[in-house]
Amino acid sequence: MFDIRQATRDDLPAIVGLLADDDLGSAREDTGTPLNPGYLTAFEAIARDPNQLLVVADDHGAVVGCLQITFIPGLSRKGAWRGQIESVRVASQRRSAGIGRVLIEWAIAKCRDRGCGSAQLTSDKSRARAHAFYARLGFVASHEGMKLKL
Amino acid sequence: MFDIRQATRDDLPAIVGLLADDDLGSAREDTGTPLNPGYLTAFEAIARDPNQLLVVADDHGAVVGCLQITFIPGLSRKGAWRGQIESVRVASQRRSAGIGRVLIEWAIAKCRDRGCGSAQLTSDKSRARAHAFYARLGFVASHEGMKLKL
Repeated sequence: MFDIRQATRDDLPAIVGLLADDDLGSAREDTGTPLNPGYLTAFEAIARDPNQLLVVADDHGAVVGCLQITFIPGLSRKGAWRGQIESVRVASQRRSAGIGRVLIEWAIAKCRDRGCGSAQLTSDKSRARAHAFYARLGFVASHEGMKLKL
Repeated sequence: MFDIRQATRDDLPAIVGLLADDDLGSAREDTGTPLNPGYLTAFEAIARDPNQLLVVADDHGAVVGCLQITFIPGLSRKGAWRGQIESVRVASQRRSAGIGRVLIEWAIAKCRDRGCGSAQLTSDKSRARAHAFYARLGFVASHEGMKLKL
């Protein structure tokens, strides 16, 4: 099995590799070395924000999955916090082995621990298998996820 | 016209009134007095988080709209920040007068100012008019918005 632990700066090349190891991600990431400085700057912003949690699934030193949770305070629903899950990835050669399920269940538990009233995520409409996966874990596709590139 | 300004604690009853002044929101908010303490706790969490921005549309002292932006650091897309827009409301008696458009365009500009690579929001699938509104402002309904109550 694997551990789920907070990501460190040393994990960045592996995490960027996971983000790029994806039909949609391959064109938008930079897996060159040295690491694109944008990743390091972003990592530092995540690491210093107590409402961000970036974790990896670590299988004996190999990073086989990752996700980020953003804890969002809000007034709606009598001031309920929400846990937003982003950048969920499992290494392509390790998919369909339950890693994603364990990661998401871990994230849901973490959202409960932080007192969130809900967990939420958006998933590209082309990812039909992902939607079925999240539905099995209890997520309801109740909303349109709308994006605007700037 | 109206000003868009950061919300203060004194705006809370009016903002809660806006959140409740809505088909979906009416059942899940508490507009009683004294104010439900959950709203005050949430307001304080928003106010002390530099990545949260809660604003109101103020028409000569009357709060006629509100929204919240969460600025989210992330590794995806070479470390791009995202601006997430939530809790968009316009007073029911002031709808269809352009207030929502001005609020969202203001939020988009704020996301650009903060260097975000994208702006995003989710909208309940029952809100067809809202989706058309956001599409006119350039948002693309590219994602499923999935929610899990905890």
